Amino acid sequence: MKHNLEKPAGRLGVLLPGLGAVATTFIAGVLAVRNGISQPYGSLTQMGTIRLGKRTEHRLPEIKDFIPLSDLSSLVFGGWDIFDDNVYDAAVKAGVLEGQLLYDLKDELSSITPMPAVFDKDYVRRLDGPNVKTGRNKMELAEALIGDIEAFKADNDCSRLVMIWCGSTETFIEVTDVHQTVESFERGLIDNHSSIPPSMIYAYAAIRMGIPYANGAPNLSADIPALVELAKKTGTPIAGKDFKTGQTLMKTIIAPGLKARSLGVHGWFSTNILGNRDGEVLDDPGSFKTKEESKLSVLETILEPDLHSHLYDDLYHKIRINYYPPRGDNKESWDNIDIFGWLGYKMQIKINFLCRDSVLAAPIVLDLALLLDQAKRSEMSGIQEWLSFYFKSPQAGEGLRPQHDLFRQLMKLENTLRYMQGEDLITHLGLDYYDEAAGS
Amino acid sequence: MKHNLEKPAGRLGVLLPGLGAVATTFIAGVLAVRNGISQPYGSLTQMGTIRLGKRTEHRLPEIKDFIPLSDLSSLVFGGWDIFDDNVYDAAVKAGVLEGQLLYDLKDELSSITPMPAVFDKDYVRRLDGPNVKTGRNKMELAEALIGDIEAFKADNDCSRLVMIWCGSTETFIEVTDVHQTVESFERGLIDNHSSIPPSMIYAYAAIRMGIPYANGAPNLSADIPALVELAKKTGTPIAGKDFKTGQTLMKTIIAPGLKARSLGVHGWFSTNILGNRDGEVLDDPGSFKTKEESKLSVLETILEPDLHSHLYDDLYHKIRINYYPPRGDNKESWDNIDIFGWLGYKMQIKINFLCRDSVLAAPIVLDLALLLDQAKRSEMSGIQEWLSFYFKSPQAGEGLRPQHDLFRQLMKLENTLRYMQGEDLITHLGLDYYDEAAGS
Amino acid sequence: MKHNLEKPAGRLGVLLPGLGAVATTFIAGVLAVRNGISQPYGSLTQMGTIRLGKRTEHRLPEIKDFIPLSDLSSLVFGGWDIFDDNVYDAAVKAGVLEGQLLYDLKDELSSITPMPAVFDKDYVRRLDGPNVKTGRNKMELAEALIGDIEAFKADNDCSRLVMIWCGSTETFIEVTDVHQTVESFERGLIDNHSSIPPSMIYAYAAIRMGIPYANGAPNLSADIPALVELAKKTGTPIAGKDFKTGQTLMKTIIAPGLKARSLGVHGWFSTNILGNRDGEVLDDPGSFKTKEESKLSVLETILEPDLHSHLYDDLYHKIRINYYPPRGDNKESWDNIDIFGWLGYKMQIKINFLCRDSVLAAPIVLDLALLLDQAKRSEMSGIQEWLSFYFKSPQAGEGLRPQHDLFRQLMKLENTLRYMQGEDLITHLGLDYYDEAAGS
Amino acid sequence: MKHNLEKPAGRLGVLLPGLGAVATTFIAGVLAVRNGISQPYGSLTQMGTIRLGKRTEHRLPEIKDFIPLSDLSSLVFGGWDIFDDNVYDAAVKAGVLEGQLLYDLKDELSSITPMPAVFDKDYVRRLDGPNVKTGRNKMELAEALIGDIEAFKADNDCSRLVMIWCGSTETFIEVTDVHQTVESFERGLIDNHSSIPPSMIYAYAAIRMGIPYANGAPNLSADIPALVELAKKTGTPIAGKDFKTGQTLMKTIIAPGLKARSLGVHGWFSTNILGNRDGEVLDDPGSFKTKEESKLSVLETILEPDLHSHLYDDLYHKIRINYYPPRGDNKESWDNIDIFGWLGYKMQIKINFLCRDSVLAAPIVLDLALLLDQAKRSEMSGIQEWLSFYFKSPQAGEGLRPQHDLFRQLMKLENTLRYMQGEDLITHLGLDYYDEAAGS
Repeated sequence: MKHNLEKPAGRLGVLLPGLGAVATTFIAGVLAVRNGISQPYGSLTQMGTIRLGKRTEHRLPEIKDFIPLSDLSSLVFGGWDIFDDNVYDAAVKAGVLEGQLLYDLKDELSSITPMPAVFDKDYVRRLDGPNVKTGRNKMELAEALIGDIEAFKADNDCSRLVMIWCGSTETFIEVTDVHQTVESFERGLIDNHSSIPPSMIYAYAAIRMGIPYANGAPNLSADIPALVELAKKTGTPIAGKDFKTGQTLMKTIIAPGLKARSLGVHGWFSTNILGNRDGEVLDDPGSFKTKEESKLSVLETILEPDLHSHLYDDLYHKIRINYYPPRGDNKESWDNIDIFGWLGYKMQIKINFLCRDSVLAAPIVLDLALLLDQAKRSEMSGIQEWLSFYFKSPQAGEGLRPQHDLFRQLMKLENTLRYMQGEDLITHLGLDYYDEAAGS
Repeated sequence: MKHNLEKPAGRLGVLLPGLGAVATTFIAGVLAVRNGISQPYGSLTQMGTIRLGKRTEHRLPEIKDFIPLSDLSSLVFGGWDIFDDNVYDAAVKAGVLEGQLLYDLKDELSSITPMPAVFDKDYVRRLDGPNVKTGRNKMELAEALIGDIEAFKADNDCSRLVMIWCGSTETFIEVTDVHQTVESFERGLIDNHSSIPPSMIYAYAAIRMGIPYANGAPNLSADIPALVELAKKTGTPIAGKDFKTGQTLMKTIIAPGLKARSLGVHGWFSTNILGNRDGEVLDDPGSFKTKEESKLSVLETILEPDLHSHLYDDLYHKIRINYYPPRGDNKESWDNIDIFGWLGYKMQIKINFLCRDSVLAAPIVLDLALLLDQAKRSEMSGIQEWLSFYFKSPQAGEGLRPQHDLFRQLMKLENTLRYMQGEDLITHLGLDYYDEAAGS
Repeated sequence: MKHNLEKPAGRLGVLLPGLGAVATTFIAGVLAVRNGISQPYGSLTQMGTIRLGKRTEHRLPEIKDFIPLSDLSSLVFGGWDIFDDNVYDAAVKAGVLEGQLLYDLKDELSSITPMPAVFDKDYVRRLDGPNVKTGRNKMELAEALIGDIEAFKADNDCSRLVMIWCGSTETFIEVTDVHQTVESFERGLIDNHSSIPPSMIYAYAAIRMGIPYANGAPNLSADIPALVELAKKTGTPIAGKDFKTGQTLMKTIIAPGLKARSLGVHGWFSTNILGNRDGEVLDDPGSFKTKEESKLSVLETILEPDLHSHLYDDLYHKIRINYYPPRGDNKESWDNIDIFGWLGYKMQIKINFLCRDSVLAAPIVLDLALLLDQAKRSEMSGIQEWLSFYFKSPQAGEGLRPQHDLFRQLMKLENTLRYMQGEDLITHLGLDYYDEAAGS
Repeated sequence: MKHNLEKPAGRLGVLLPGLGAVATTFIAGVLAVRNGISQPYGSLTQMGTIRLGKRTEHRLPEIKDFIPLSDLSSLVFGGWDIFDDNVYDAAVKAGVLEGQLLYDLKDELSSITPMPAVFDKDYVRRLDGPNVKTGRNKMELAEALIGDIEAFKADNDCSRLVMIWCGSTETFIEVTDVHQTVESFERGLIDNHSSIPPSMIYAYAAIRMGIPYANGAPNLSADIPALVELAKKTGTPIAGKDFKTGQTLMKTIIAPGLKARSLGVHGWFSTNILGNRDGEVLDDPGSFKTKEESKLSVLETILEPDLHSHLYDDLYHKIRINYYPPRGDNKESWDNIDIFGWLGYKMQIKINFLCRDSVLAAPIVLDLALLLDQAKRSEMSGIQEWLSFYFKSPQAGEGLRPQHDLFRQLMKLENTLRYMQGEDLITHLGLDYYDEAAGS
């Protein structure tokens, strides 16, 4: 790992496959902050502080100063979409942000237009659009993306790039032979192998070029041995999968709390209503299965029924997502948790979260762009498990159980930042305060 | 600190000022577990495991084996109450546990009868009872408690003792001169100083005798300089205040999650309905104020508005407790949290917790009894901040901000246990897994 | 209509196809009331009063005295089930009522054993049991039921009988030719027509014998022209379909309130979690469709979007039922209602109902048994629309829109009772009080 | 009663004491509808239909056509307030409606400026403002109001007037001698009697002039014998008290439903959070008591524990209103209802209403203005109990229990409208449909 002490020079290009609700909310938000209209609420890298040393030292710098992250002013944005609306029009259609705010940023937003997308209707059955690439095989499509990226970099005078997948959830597939090695994967691209969805083609293009890549959807994308191997070879940091927002965010906050107290759980029922394009896509059983797998894994790895069979063995976990147009992007979740404590007495927790999906996801895009760029400059490559904090279904090294507990993820992230800058790690032991107090 | 590697010999006496809903639920539960009727759900010391070493080592012992805690079979119970019901009758009246379960344990429960209590109606206006001590001054009352304790120890053949305050919330008072030194405090006891409530007299008796003391209510009790000083002198571990159950437990789970994500909070409204004796006592404005102070402090120390003014400066925090007899001990809380994220967009979280207060508190009594006894055997004394995990209003060393975040409290507790047994502390850094994986 | 002024003589036999959770809860409850253990809470006929005349007359008799209903002491119980458990065993397995209560009634409950049922697995795919009738065709099965009923009547010395379907929800079918006339239907029975499910065979047997019949499930059962015709011929009162409990009960309470105030509705999302046999059966898509149709119709007929297009034209109504074992019979519903008012401003109502399905259904069985017996004695026959109050999907005369508004249903029921006894109908006009007050 | 068959000629002046959130929302809404910007959602008179005759006749006219109500185009607005902001500025400060909508109506709204108010800080302790009348005694203040009204009528060329109290809740007082007769009341005005708050002075002025008067707050105002007597003398229709919105609206929807089913109620806990001026005023214990009395009476008169002691005798009803600034006018209520059914089994209903207080109140102001004007033209005078539908605490004739059940209130209102126009009253009996069907 290379220590970084100075802010980077030059512009950082942020490439976004999928210019829908999340990506346009992200872009509009960064522009709003740059224009002094708002603050980057929800972004740990912009709003967070980090404690260094002992509590009594009162060293609490802002993360963005402690780590020499790119400034927001250095970001430029590009992307691909199956619709050819520019970012202003796409944002108006997404209906997440108020018209007045978008109007104030119209010139900047309108100037960003999507490049034609790599798309395959077999993987996203509920969508279709005109702005798509064609090619004789998937390798040709990958090459076309690489061409796009090189052109973008030159046109926008970027010194560095990152790519964050903000596209739709693709239908469920499992890892097979074609995904095992760089060689088999590249052969698959040429052979138009059916198990290579668009999100893998984007990931391949980025990683081959050494561009950090993060995956905000539950699709496999870069989470296959072939692309992990390629990432190590090309020195590329990668992270995924599925931005942790809304219901799953709450679940990875609350489940660790229940477990901390050794409270048992009989059942956890989670339902959602949402009316945006995401809801429409997830109305397709194939896409829902991909999402469900991503969401279901959370409780088991946090609660560890194998270690705590009395408490979690009979846990019944059920997740439902309901397309419900009256809500648009204002997703709402309702959870019922059946817990038990002392002597087996039953209690219930109900959580009703009136959230906004894209509003929760946008600052994650920002943080990942900046932290992956930082990782690249620090010469870190392969899976960045310390970014698990941002994902529903964190990608982890082979043989390692992913960490879902939000608070262990945060500790991992913060101690990694301390480690990157040569500071002591925090353990919260703190017995020394009391020895001192006693005069010893 | 002395390393402990063997289970202790002899019986551990658990002394409980206040044999109401919490204490009787605790005793009945331990007996039920000893009789094979139930498992000690909700108790971290009995049900929890602790990870040691690297993730790949798979060393995950049970806490009760890792640390040589007293076995449940070695516990004996005693206590004081203003009513003279034995523990069986008191448990039936408290109405927390089912009649059948209590009936199955009737012989053992009936054999425990309360010693006459030190009581002062000025401090708990809604209660009164016949089983109270009299004395010319508060020092005499303290001496009477010491006599009770010595007799209990002899009668029950105990090798060690701990005391856990399970009494009612006393009316609000502030720290004054009489609380500053052991000397001024002992003079105050003799002079019948009005700022020394019963819970301080119990704490004084225990600490003078070197008996570990924990305080489950929000009263000051041992949280005054005089008793901290005495605890260091007599080598006594102490901990407090106010068992963290129900709504505040949820608050210290969720608030750290919101802060982790740099989500802003405009308001947090918390209401409760409960119909037990605790609810009746808290209907008195004086007792409510003590409780309110304990509950209000939580958000500010977790969210740190001084460090994050954009996010938490205008937070409006309101707590209500409503006496509502239809519910009995089945306390229920409803929280509404007004949060905001990216671009200031507003979201809401509602949490409805149908809990059982005494069921959540009872395993805390157990854990504190065992861990404080362990601390004593490890020659730790004074404030045990690593037990903050169990308290709404954790007692911390002078000049140290208390830690309310449940997950930092847990890390502190677990790393203290590791430290006590000479194991490496856990930082969740974990970069080494990936370096190994890369063959470096 | 014949006026009834005296309580009937003799015993009333209550015949129940389906001795599961609802039927056993009903029987145990009646026995508990007869034994002085409880009151018949939830039963309008037993607990309700009815206002007669002007408000100032203060004539408010109990319904059971105003109308000469059978006394609870005169009821005897019988039924059919595919399992051969007696009612005590079936009630214990259903898990609705506490063991102690059932134990106190064990002798009486054990003495009721199910007659072999008419069953067809094609109509209830998730269930199967050993205690079933066989026959060469459906007419033979009907004759076998008639034989059962005659034997039951003789054995139990009944002067009158009623039958209430308490069986499972059958898979969805539509009305076809075979259901049009008595003749086609009887031919269908002989020809083993596949569109005649068991619940129609029971209904046919009862109605042919002149025994009042009510249908507590959403299956068509007696809601076909053939059986309505037969009911008129044999002078038999009938009523259905689908006991109105839980979520739909709340819906028919709240929707009329919103409409009364001309508040618009954008969407109504209803979800349920339940873990009893009913939940298991409804996990089958065929049975769920039957239930869904029954539940969906409610809002449209109450809100009348054809008359109020500005308010209800775009109403999105979605219902989900989730099998969730941790809950057993303690069904729970969560509704989110998106409403709008003045200037189109949006508001939301969330309703969380922690209900008990069988506890809500049992008193409906009782009321229907008594009121249908009354109707029979009053020489009323065919569809008893005034009993719509008890049903999710009320059976109404041809060409008449069913009435779902609970309060209009209640007014209809109460004014029918007044009419049956020759009292003035209530209109709530009440202008006369003020003319009198003014001395005119 | 005089039958009205034609729409009235001329303009109707609507006079509003209190130009705050409710009044400005009402005025802006009517203007928006007149300008084609919105529909009068929430107004029964504008959006509702009424069924006439038998169901099979399909006679379902709109209420506003069936009854010759004033058209919205004929309304003119005036009012009094202690602040001198015009209606545009007041609406912007109230923060209920979006800026853009108000801006579109700015000219019309700005042209309405408040007349100086009659105000007494002893009755509304949390408010104070500069735009107030002075006078030697309360009779002089009443005369000043009468002068204002005459000037307004002339200036605006009105043919008729109505007055609707939209001011704040005054502190609690009881009816005393001074309120008994017109004579004692007028003497009290001259003597500056302390038990005559401003809202009575406004009511007196209106009623003396024969102007219909409705009271949207829980203050006594016109609900005293003296003003009822005066209303009969001057031929003035009056109605009150306290607009039925939000939580109480829901309560009078749900409680009748529970009672209809003979479900028992152990407890009903109602809490509210709101941050508008109303919330600030109700933070004062005196004003809260007035409101609490108004809200508490609802359940008792609906459930009638005197008639149904087994079901409602031990009902514990508690109401809390919490000032919570983050919400502004977006009041939110949370209700927990503890019910029981068959065999005493307990169930719970939770209702969370995210409402908007002024949005629910505004159409009530409109309906009352139009219906009271209608009553006046139909020569009805004194208490209009048929308008109970709109009030939390309906004013009823001496010796008559008020009707709180929303559905009986609606039936009363609709049958009164039918009666006014000579149509048959509806009883929902409907047995004739079935006799016809049977050919008899």
